[in-house]
Amino acid sequence: MEKQQNKSLIIACVFLFLFLASQIQCTSQTQFNAIRRINGPSFRTTVSRVNQQDLKKKDLIKKLPGQPSVKFRQYGGYVAVNESAGQFLYYYFVESIKTNDSSPLVIWFNGGPGCSSLGSAFQSHGPFRIHSDGKTLYHNPYSWNNEANMLYVEGPVQVGFSYTNTPFINSHGDSLTAEDNYMFLVKWLERFPEYKGREFYIAAQSYGGHYGPQLAQIILHRKAQTFINLRGMILGNPTFEKEIESKGNDEYLVGHAYITKELVAHKNQICGSTIDVDIFSECGKADRKIMILTRQLNLYNIYAHVCLNSTLTSMPKKYTTVTNFDPCSQHYMTAYLNRANVQKAMHANTTKLPYMWSQCNDDIRIDYNSTDKYVSMLPSLHKLMGKGIRILVHNGDLDAVVSVTSTMHVLKKLNLTVEKTWRPWFSGREVGGYTEEYKGNFTYATVRGAGHTVASDQPIRALTLFTSFIRNTPLPYM
Amino acid sequence: MEKQQNKSLIIACVFLFLFLASQIQCTSQTQFNAIRRINGPSFRTTVSRVNQQDLKKKDLIKKLPGQPSVKFRQYGGYVAVNESAGQFLYYYFVESIKTNDSSPLVIWFNGGPGCSSLGSAFQSHGPFRIHSDGKTLYHNPYSWNNEANMLYVEGPVQVGFSYTNTPFINSHGDSLTAEDNYMFLVKWLERFPEYKGREFYIAAQSYGGHYGPQLAQIILHRKAQTFINLRGMILGNPTFEKEIESKGNDEYLVGHAYITKELVAHKNQICGSTIDVDIFSECGKADRKIMILTRQLNLYNIYAHVCLNSTLTSMPKKYTTVTNFDPCSQHYMTAYLNRANVQKAMHANTTKLPYMWSQCNDDIRIDYNSTDKYVSMLPSLHKLMGKGIRILVHNGDLDAVVSVTSTMHVLKKLNLTVEKTWRPWFSGREVGGYTEEYKGNFTYATVRGAGHTVASDQPIRALTLFTSFIRNTPLPYM
Repeated sequence: MEKQQNKSLIIACVFLFLFLASQIQCTSQTQFNAIRRINGPSFRTTVSRVNQQDLKKKDLIKKLPGQPSVKFRQYGGYVAVNESAGQFLYYYFVESIKTNDSSPLVIWFNGGPGCSSLGSAFQSHGPFRIHSDGKTLYHNPYSWNNEANMLYVEGPVQVGFSYTNTPFINSHGDSLTAEDNYMFLVKWLERFPEYKGREFYIAAQSYGGHYGPQLAQIILHRKAQTFINLRGMILGNPTFEKEIESKGNDEYLVGHAYITKELVAHKNQICGSTIDVDIFSECGKADRKIMILTRQLNLYNIYAHVCLNSTLTSMPKKYTTVTNFDPCSQHYMTAYLNRANVQKAMHANTTKLPYMWSQCNDDIRIDYNSTDKYVSMLPSLHKLMGKGIRILVHNGDLDAVVSVTSTMHVLKKLNLTVEKTWRPWFSGREVGGYTEEYKGNFTYATVRGAGHTVASDQPIRALTLFTSFIRNTPLPYM
Repeated sequence: MEKQQNKSLIIACVFLFLFLASQIQCTSQTQFNAIRRINGPSFRTTVSRVNQQDLKKKDLIKKLPGQPSVKFRQYGGYVAVNESAGQFLYYYFVESIKTNDSSPLVIWFNGGPGCSSLGSAFQSHGPFRIHSDGKTLYHNPYSWNNEANMLYVEGPVQVGFSYTNTPFINSHGDSLTAEDNYMFLVKWLERFPEYKGREFYIAAQSYGGHYGPQLAQIILHRKAQTFINLRGMILGNPTFEKEIESKGNDEYLVGHAYITKELVAHKNQICGSTIDVDIFSECGKADRKIMILTRQLNLYNIYAHVCLNSTLTSMPKKYTTVTNFDPCSQHYMTAYLNRANVQKAMHANTTKLPYMWSQCNDDIRIDYNSTDKYVSMLPSLHKLMGKGIRILVHNGDLDAVVSVTSTMHVLKKLNLTVEKTWRPWFSGREVGGYTEEYKGNFTYATVRGAGHTVASDQPIRALTLFTSFIRNTPLPYM
């Protein structure tokens, strides 16, 4: 009888505790409406008093709607990066399928700036892809959680499900993003303490070429290494220095016979080193001529089909495979992530945002601090190398947005010392791309037949590359 | 009763006639064994005394083994290009699906030198493709016989089913090939007189960049225009001037990040303008370094999968589509064309050749007159333009064998006057490629996402291009 009473008491306590824990998060989420914030960038490193570990259980995703059965756990939820201003980043976390407890932790950032990491989670290297019905999921056997615990973060605030509850008039910029990402990580590790001290990697693409090195630098600067065991950084089609890359992209399009050498020579003659072009100037006109020639293409993969019919199908399209990327995937994803039952299952959009989830927030892309956009990341890369951070930079070779030609210019300017010369690497008995290794733990690799979003177009090759990076083994040869 | 007798008499005469006609061809084909010929190049223009028209009926292919039903007729058989030496070219002819009688006649040549036109007939723009079982065919809805009567010729002699019955020690060369092709055409038009005077086009790819202009020049020189109504020439990834093209291919591979700029600069410094490289020289070594980097690729389409398992399947592979080219297609074709029932149906290999049918005869590729290989076709192109021959040159932009970059150099050297500037063209609501038009009825076009064999990789875009050329209409815009 006493035992029975004790049991009841324990159950009551657990319920009370869960209730209080949920109230803490609910209060902080519902007392504001999601609006632009007015306070400018500030450095905030105070870790929340909320017991993050208790929130973890709440974040467990039982099952995503339409999802096939899997053996790993998924979590989704919010982390406050500025509690007083009510600023929250949404995350989706996928445990590694490996049963041991030592799989590394990898944080993933999409670029833009302003694009959601869920784009990569549900169209690229996450465990599921979304069917053409916008309702059901199919398994991606080449998911990066084959190798690591994958943490997808939607940032900066106002991207995807992430939001702010206070008016916000200052534009987004690199320092604020980096601080928010750092704060996110610190708090998330409080929520998931088993990953403290675990091998940690930063992974990103595109404008993530800024986010990655900047987060890495904060981590090293704050000497947070006791619990953030940063080992390396893998960056795909990253933007490091826009000026040099812009010229590289023109060259790339000439080399692929989409525009003519003469048009580019004409533009270069008129524009000189101008970057931000006034569209009505002579330089703007020359630039526009090039733009017009390529506007009907998907510049993120110049040989891909474009999406000609984005209508959802009543049933999933037949014969859909992960290795044959559907150019309309983004539409299926947008439909899926805006479904009430999906948001509920993912613990997303709990505050009823006054806008739909979308892959990219174009306002952020436009408003993002333009000085930051043109800052070179090359000194930062050198610093990180100096601190023993292992770096793998790679390019899908069909991308005209951050093209392989652009990155070649960047590599030249980085002025690295070749350790192992240019050679092909292999995946599935085929050439996966080419690679060169440099002194200071810096590897460059191309991914053959992939566009900007490498794992969307070449999931097998991307997983080979990722695995090799995580395991710190040379890319396979034959 | 009298009527009955007359009828019997007529039937008997027809049979006698058919018997005699068949004897004429059979005798000429079986009295020799297929061996290399000893007589050198000679100009032979005497048209055979054999009644070609009678042979036509014999050449009718009732049905190819494993073929789906179609409404057009197909023919296959031999035409003697040098009767005294017993030299025969095999042809496969596919009537246009158009029911009117005015569809043009198009003769098609594969390149090599030494590669069979049947390669294009059964893997590219012919009416059928071959299943992975090597036994059955499926329909190609984008076949070029949607628009024209397609005449595929296996040349020069000793390519594919074409053969010679006399020993042959002189190497093959352009003049002999052109003469044989001309003789073939003259005799074939005797066999199919309904095509005399019909709009006639020469179509070719690769080394066909030599065959095409040379045949065209003979036709014009012999003033055969009364019965050969040559209007134009369509050439895909054609080789016109090997020296300039070789450098272009290196540039192409650099631009696509398969080899490095530094390696090519090193090679150019050592090799200068050397073309035929001694592999043991310093230049040879520099060249070999580049070769090694790309030897595991399919250079005919640098992003295509390579064939990793060429084994025939017991049943056709599921979900095979024309728009998804199978990299093992060549193996299915070789199996199919070496089947006894297929050869019988096609009236091929009637003399029991002591070798198998193969896509390319590498001996010819190697032995072909090396001076001819390096002769520039540019003067010939200018001459043909001067005589009002309409020319469309196009490049699949994924080919590294005769790359788009190489052809750009050729175009520059051709020094044409731009009439309509560089712009995209469209096929199926997507960018099919880019095009520029020049004075003198010369059009250049790229085909986006296609390799060396344009219609294999991009059958829809290739048909759009071909149709536009045949109809003499501008390439579609949107």
